Amino acid sequence: MNIDAGLIDRLEIAFHPKAIAIAGASEDPLSFGHQFLRHLLDYNYTGHIYPVNPNKESIFGIKSYPNLSSIPGQIDYVICCLPASMVVDLLAECPARGVKIVHLVTARLSETGRKEARELENKILHAARKLNIRLIGPNCMGIYYPCGRLANGYNLPKESGNIGAVFQSGGSSTLLIRYGELRGLRFSKVISYGNALDIDESDFLNYLAQDDETEVIAAYFEGVKDGRKFLRALNNAACVKPVIVIKGGRGKSGAKAVASHTAAIAGSTPVWSTVFKKAGVVPAKDLRELVDLLVAFSFLPPIMGYRVGIVSAGGGLSVMSADICEEAGLTVPPMPHAIREELKKKAPEIWDWIGNPIDVSIMGAVSVGLAEIIRELPRLMAGSPHFDFLIAEFSDDNPFLTEIWTALAARQTEAYISLHNKQLKSMIAVVHSEAANSHLPSYQRWKILSEQRAKFAEAGIPTYLSMDEAANAVRKFIDHCRAKAER
Amino acid sequence: MNIDAGLIDRLEIAFHPKAIAIAGASEDPLSFGHQFLRHLLDYNYTGHIYPVNPNKESIFGIKSYPNLSSIPGQIDYVICCLPASMVVDLLAECPARGVKIVHLVTARLSETGRKEARELENKILHAARKLNIRLIGPNCMGIYYPCGRLANGYNLPKESGNIGAVFQSGGSSTLLIRYGELRGLRFSKVISYGNALDIDESDFLNYLAQDDETEVIAAYFEGVKDGRKFLRALNNAACVKPVIVIKGGRGKSGAKAVASHTAAIAGSTPVWSTVFKKAGVVPAKDLRELVDLLVAFSFLPPIMGYRVGIVSAGGGLSVMSADICEEAGLTVPPMPHAIREELKKKAPEIWDWIGNPIDVSIMGAVSVGLAEIIRELPRLMAGSPHFDFLIAEFSDDNPFLTEIWTALAARQTEAYISLHNKQLKSMIAVVHSEAANSHLPSYQRWKILSEQRAKFAEAGIPTYLSMDEAANAVRKFIDHCRAKAER
Repeated sequence: MNIDAGLIDRLEIAFHPKAIAIAGASEDPLSFGHQFLRHLLDYNYTGHIYPVNPNKESIFGIKSYPNLSSIPGQIDYVICCLPASMVVDLLAECPARGVKIVHLVTARLSETGRKEARELENKILHAARKLNIRLIGPNCMGIYYPCGRLANGYNLPKESGNIGAVFQSGGSSTLLIRYGELRGLRFSKVISYGNALDIDESDFLNYLAQDDETEVIAAYFEGVKDGRKFLRALNNAACVKPVIVIKGGRGKSGAKAVASHTAAIAGSTPVWSTVFKKAGVVPAKDLRELVDLLVAFSFLPPIMGYRVGIVSAGGGLSVMSADICEEAGLTVPPMPHAIREELKKKAPEIWDWIGNPIDVSIMGAVSVGLAEIIRELPRLMAGSPHFDFLIAEFSDDNPFLTEIWTALAARQTEAYISLHNKQLKSMIAVVHSEAANSHLPSYQRWKILSEQRAKFAEAGIPTYLSMDEAANAVRKFIDHCRAKAER
Repeated sequence: MNIDAGLIDRLEIAFHPKAIAIAGASEDPLSFGHQFLRHLLDYNYTGHIYPVNPNKESIFGIKSYPNLSSIPGQIDYVICCLPASMVVDLLAECPARGVKIVHLVTARLSETGRKEARELENKILHAARKLNIRLIGPNCMGIYYPCGRLANGYNLPKESGNIGAVFQSGGSSTLLIRYGELRGLRFSKVISYGNALDIDESDFLNYLAQDDETEVIAAYFEGVKDGRKFLRALNNAACVKPVIVIKGGRGKSGAKAVASHTAAIAGSTPVWSTVFKKAGVVPAKDLRELVDLLVAFSFLPPIMGYRVGIVSAGGGLSVMSADICEEAGLTVPPMPHAIREELKKKAPEIWDWIGNPIDVSIMGAVSVGLAEIIRELPRLMAGSPHFDFLIAEFSDDNPFLTEIWTALAARQTEAYISLHNKQLKSMIAVVHSEAANSHLPSYQRWKILSEQRAKFAEAGIPTYLSMDEAANAVRKFIDHCRAKAER
């Protein structure tokens, strides 16, 4: 490995700037110059903020400057929201103010497919190289670093987590953060890098690989700038941390879309698949699967076997869940002998009726005493060496009034979290989740599920929206744990 | 086809009873005897209601009777919530009161696997046969028929629709209705039939096949009582209406779960697959996929080709959506020549930057005039013979403040609905949908998406939660349309 230590230092400046200038700062809420300034304020960035706009005395009450040169202090980092034609002039002002790294939000460059735009992009790169300035972008959303109070979107979580992400697409990186938030995922650093004119995907991978704040790496790549460098970076990263990647532009039309999005060359799918496989990288097909995989990789200790104990919430659901788990490559073994023997003693009336999956809804059909015994079963399963992990499924599959169900659901949630806290076994939750439509009379029922899921996520229990997605993600997680152990 | 006309008449009585007795009516909200009585009241059932309970004078202010015999008028239909041991005696009272059909909510029969329970179940069947009474169940939730104000769950929609469903699992049938509600699906009749002791899956299929209120049939089967009868019923139904089926118990553990759920014999998966394929039945793997397929089959006119025009909401999303659609077997053709020529004239600065998928987020990067032209593109695509249908994707992939985005989203929603109303082409919406967690600061953003989706569903636009699910369901729908046309 030869990682560019100088570049790592530069990126550290971007993550920990003492002073930031926003070139093109604006009061127009539709402009990026407005948004990036707002983000610094909203997330309580503690360094100096210098809005740059020749037509304004101040913006949001902060003194504004006509250009970089007129700013009194040193500037570490510039967020450039100017039109493409103005970037070269901005760069020329940077060295005198001590600027080491510039984030180019600026777009309409090579991604337009136009010759003149591509030439301008080259001029920008040339100027930056000559002035010893490193560039993030252009055509990108740059950095989300909650620990440093840097953000690139509204209402993103302020807490940090263990996932580092490098995304060629800015909007998708924000979606990743938002989707992940609801499932308890939190991020160390998320970088959107767009056209990768200077610092590229390999550099960011190298950065995240050596970053102590990052334990799991998520990535979205549309193309690569330098194949060999990328292979080195990817192999190195996957060696030290789990790396989960969406490759955008796998098909013909996707590859065309890539060209007009970030001007990248998508490359052939079989090559990418081989590269991923060799490196031990886990591929994801879309954002949803990426989030599902991150939930497993971010929350779970290694699981080395496929044997799942299923706690289900209904008769039909039990059947479908068993089918889905087996079809995903998991094993759904029968209830172990030891548990059956214990049941036989305690509940002779029903011991042979109960299997894996357990359908806890049968509690409604038996006596209070027997219901107590069924309630105990997840604990017995968690303690059994015949299961590698448990999945419990929660749904609206119940015949009760909403008030009654609210209480039942709360008790179930608490019981599952308290069992999880005993750390007997890896535990996963599936909470059926259609988005709540607040105008529907059934809204209150969906709200219960949604809050139940939030509680699981907060307790550190990997939480999925369907059994199908849980089984798929956990299966891939186990595959990865086993492959890792064999290396 | 020889359909049992007598049985159809009996079922019509169950759907249109003039008087219902609830045996085992109760004030205990945890009991089915409470719930079924409440449902009749909640959904404003207009016939006579007779609670039966020897220990109560009245329940919910309605006069209660100690037994069927003491009820003064004729009774068409009995919902029996009594313990299994009391069913034979109840049946004996039925003929004198004119009862033709009984729904046995009663469980703990053959599904327990116990010899004595199985024997009791046989006795019940024997008694019913002798008394000329037909049975729905036992171990089932019976009938949801909004048009007749009969329901078997709280807060289910009161409006009717075109989907008839026959479900071996009661809880899952309620989930189908709830999940479907959020996507605009409404049902003609939903029947849960549990252990199928007397009237079985084939009978219900026959009923729905001839039912004028039903245009699409959804089913969940765990096993079949009579193979030949089932094949006839399935083939007949699939001949006259689309039939979409979840087969529960496809795997080893699922088949075991089936036995303890409804005492059915799951049968071998390859056989079922062959049967479905021959009959032209569409298989679904779980409730989620069933709902996705129903959205297509219930809302869309036939689509005969795979060429999709995609309107996407971001650069990365465009790329991923194109990939996902191609991987699902759809074709994502380049923007047709005619549209490109029109763009070349109207928008020479950007005409060659725009393809299929269109990324409408580039509107933010261009002048107001050009943005207007991009806004027009979905209309041009809807009018082009080079696309068979359109999918538009809506997400939170936007950099704006929530207030601004609310207005933008409302405008987009309105525009898409108004284009849909022009009926130029089949149009589908994908609205990214993580369930809203109301305690998160980002809740308001999810609420916008959720309301957008509700509006699409109300406008009759098939609406999906992800591009992946949309592409999968629509692909299967088109396969079905084409196969049908070839027959």
